[in-house]
Amino acid sequence: MKTGKKIEARTLRGFHDKLPSEALIKAKMLATLRRVFDSFGFVPIETPHVEYLEIMGQEQTGEEIQKQLFRWLDQGERQVALRFDLTVPFARFIVQHRGEVGIPFKRYAIGEVFRGERPQAGRYREFTQCDFDFVGTDSTAADAEIVQVIATALKALGIGEFLIRVNNRRVLNGAMEILGIGDKTVDVLRTIDKKDKIGIDAVKEELRDGVGLSNDQIEGFLNFISLSAGASPSEVLEKVRSYEGKSAVFDQGVSELRTMETILAPLDSVKDCYSIDFSIARGLGYYTGIVYETVLKASPGMGSICGGGRYDNLTKSFSDEDLPGVGASFGLDRIVAALKELGLTEDTGTPAEVLIVCERADSAPVLYRTAETMRQSGINVEVFPEAVKLKNQFVYSERHGHPFIMFVESTPEGAFSCKLRNARTREQNIFNSVEEVSDYMLRERK
Amino acid sequence: MKTGKKIEARTLRGFHDKLPSEALIKAKMLATLRRVFDSFGFVPIETPHVEYLEIMGQEQTGEEIQKQLFRWLDQGERQVALRFDLTVPFARFIVQHRGEVGIPFKRYAIGEVFRGERPQAGRYREFTQCDFDFVGTDSTAADAEIVQVIATALKALGIGEFLIRVNNRRVLNGAMEILGIGDKTVDVLRTIDKKDKIGIDAVKEELRDGVGLSNDQIEGFLNFISLSAGASPSEVLEKVRSYEGKSAVFDQGVSELRTMETILAPLDSVKDCYSIDFSIARGLGYYTGIVYETVLKASPGMGSICGGGRYDNLTKSFSDEDLPGVGASFGLDRIVAALKELGLTEDTGTPAEVLIVCERADSAPVLYRTAETMRQSGINVEVFPEAVKLKNQFVYSERHGHPFIMFVESTPEGAFSCKLRNARTREQNIFNSVEEVSDYMLRERK
Repeated sequence: MKTGKKIEARTLRGFHDKLPSEALIKAKMLATLRRVFDSFGFVPIETPHVEYLEIMGQEQTGEEIQKQLFRWLDQGERQVALRFDLTVPFARFIVQHRGEVGIPFKRYAIGEVFRGERPQAGRYREFTQCDFDFVGTDSTAADAEIVQVIATALKALGIGEFLIRVNNRRVLNGAMEILGIGDKTVDVLRTIDKKDKIGIDAVKEELRDGVGLSNDQIEGFLNFISLSAGASPSEVLEKVRSYEGKSAVFDQGVSELRTMETILAPLDSVKDCYSIDFSIARGLGYYTGIVYETVLKASPGMGSICGGGRYDNLTKSFSDEDLPGVGASFGLDRIVAALKELGLTEDTGTPAEVLIVCERADSAPVLYRTAETMRQSGINVEVFPEAVKLKNQFVYSERHGHPFIMFVESTPEGAFSCKLRNARTREQNIFNSVEEVSDYMLRERK
Repeated sequence: MKTGKKIEARTLRGFHDKLPSEALIKAKMLATLRRVFDSFGFVPIETPHVEYLEIMGQEQTGEEIQKQLFRWLDQGERQVALRFDLTVPFARFIVQHRGEVGIPFKRYAIGEVFRGERPQAGRYREFTQCDFDFVGTDSTAADAEIVQVIATALKALGIGEFLIRVNNRRVLNGAMEILGIGDKTVDVLRTIDKKDKIGIDAVKEELRDGVGLSNDQIEGFLNFISLSAGASPSEVLEKVRSYEGKSAVFDQGVSELRTMETILAPLDSVKDCYSIDFSIARGLGYYTGIVYETVLKASPGMGSICGGGRYDNLTKSFSDEDLPGVGASFGLDRIVAALKELGLTEDTGTPAEVLIVCERADSAPVLYRTAETMRQSGINVEVFPEAVKLKNQFVYSERHGHPFIMFVESTPEGAFSCKLRNARTREQNIFNSVEEVSDYMLRERK
């Protein structure tokens, strides 16, 4: 019946559907990340997508984000909101379930978050976050483990060469104390953070004219920061010796970086992919100790693909009990963009390795039986469901990108043969048993 | 600082957090389902959690669900709503992206949906759905494949013995036509659907007094339904021969079941777990052909854990173009409940197989290096991050349920030994190299 007014099929502005090729990349990436988290004993938790507005829109939530909240009055007259990140729900979670999960606690969370931002190319109002945190411990070993998880995960994702740049907010604060500019910490860091954007000359100008530092102070601070340029972690930790003994905060910060280095230095997983970089600040308010950023060597302009750091108290909005911790967050959209840019994603629209075409309706039992046998060998097999024109089945296969197409011949007496065509090379092979074709495909896979 | 008003850490009524043990079970279950979907060439898609209200709250959405929608006016004055299922968004998706994904199209989707139902034990306002559909084909082979996917998935989940009960709405409608009660189809099916709840005598009474059937008609219909009781699919398809040749709809329905049987009979995956059952109707409006329900043999009272069927037109709210298909949905909450009830879930709070305890702060480098080496062998290893009292580390380990605890001894000269304790049996073993302990753990795993 062609009746009834039709509804326009459309997504909301700023929201989008993930087509199979994108959803497949995401699923594969998240499976890899979960495997790495699991291997370090991080545990998954899930929190609801909807929370009380007072939890999401609290004072500590920045004004900008407060404006971006999706919020409403629910059926029970409660002010509610969609979560805008996974950190605030985790803070709420750990206060609510501390007795059940215990402290220390290392968790990861993967989920969609929502922000009513002005839509831009590649930025959506619903996007996926992937956070992992180790809370309830002051130990620098936990900070080191975060670096190790980042490195292990990025290697497992096969994203190419990367550099995890590590700093310590205590070192920065201590250095400014030593240079007599400890009262201008916030302004200095805010300016330094712009270095990559505006260039070093503009930074100097702003430090002098805006922040009010003397030329000596500017020189002194920039000299300190440049200590870490191009040096290995152990070299940096040698170079800073001349600054030690002047500020307790500085000395503590350096000592933490040394402890971290003793743990990381023997590890294969972080070899050549971690540096100490005194120019990393990572914003202003939240972090209090070691901080991280990660850049891809092939596309440094892309920005950080995994960052984080140590904080003193995750739960201060909910509880008087302090809860220190350290955590980081993978920038999934940037990682996908990088994998694509580097040509590291297979642009496939199907997990199936072969399409068995259907030439006669009555052959379906043999085709489905053949497919089942191949699946039992671990091969992903799709059967075309009806005997439409072969041309249409080829169009289907090309659209989805099956690496192989298979033509099965069989007789009522049970004789079996098949032709396997490599979709890329067009090479064809004949096999006389399901086992033979399965073995061939498993060999070709390697 | 102990200042500032604290916010109460709580979830909304009807919403809940998933603690690690629950989130681990869910993650494992979904990974298994994804693997099975992949092996049949179903592709994942993702749609947003938020949609236009006119899409979610359209006429075809039942009144009950319309009331349960989470809906609001967004920042752009758009009427929006959280999705209440994954079927309506899929219908919207396939109309919007038909040109990109092509037809036929077999997709799966896993995601959270939202309904403002009255909270009940075990039922939440946010819950996970897992749907798979094969659209754009009339072929019965697609219906057969759905049965095969259900069977393969449930076996992979290790959920114990189950039965997929298959019927065809055409057979039911045809049988009623033959019995001269074709004008009362809706009322008869509504009554029959209550059989398990109210019992056969109450059904007979209602068919007579409510629906207005004669005793002969009641007898005739119940006789027809009972044909399938306790019989194998091939036996049922023999028994119905006496009804054939009287109704075109009936004959078409039986013919589809026969085609399905020729495909399913040779398959290992469905052996002994599929039956034809004429008492299955699966509601009234939506389905038009073959329908399915799945019950666990160990807990039939739990209801269906995977159901679905064939429909004529998925997209009629959005498009004049017909789109037939067949699909099913896994009842994830029921599957988890069943796995728990059957004692088939490991009640563990961690994916880590061993906790390496930390006895001295300066041993961290050796512990982290040891853990890394074990991870390279594929073992999930957690290191306790600080040298607190061993008792506290044991409490941590017991709480999370690490199967093994490991004590590492090493000398500055590089001599290594470790003691591995089985947390359950308390058995202890000493090893003199990381390789030895890894080999032992891999052997014990099997």
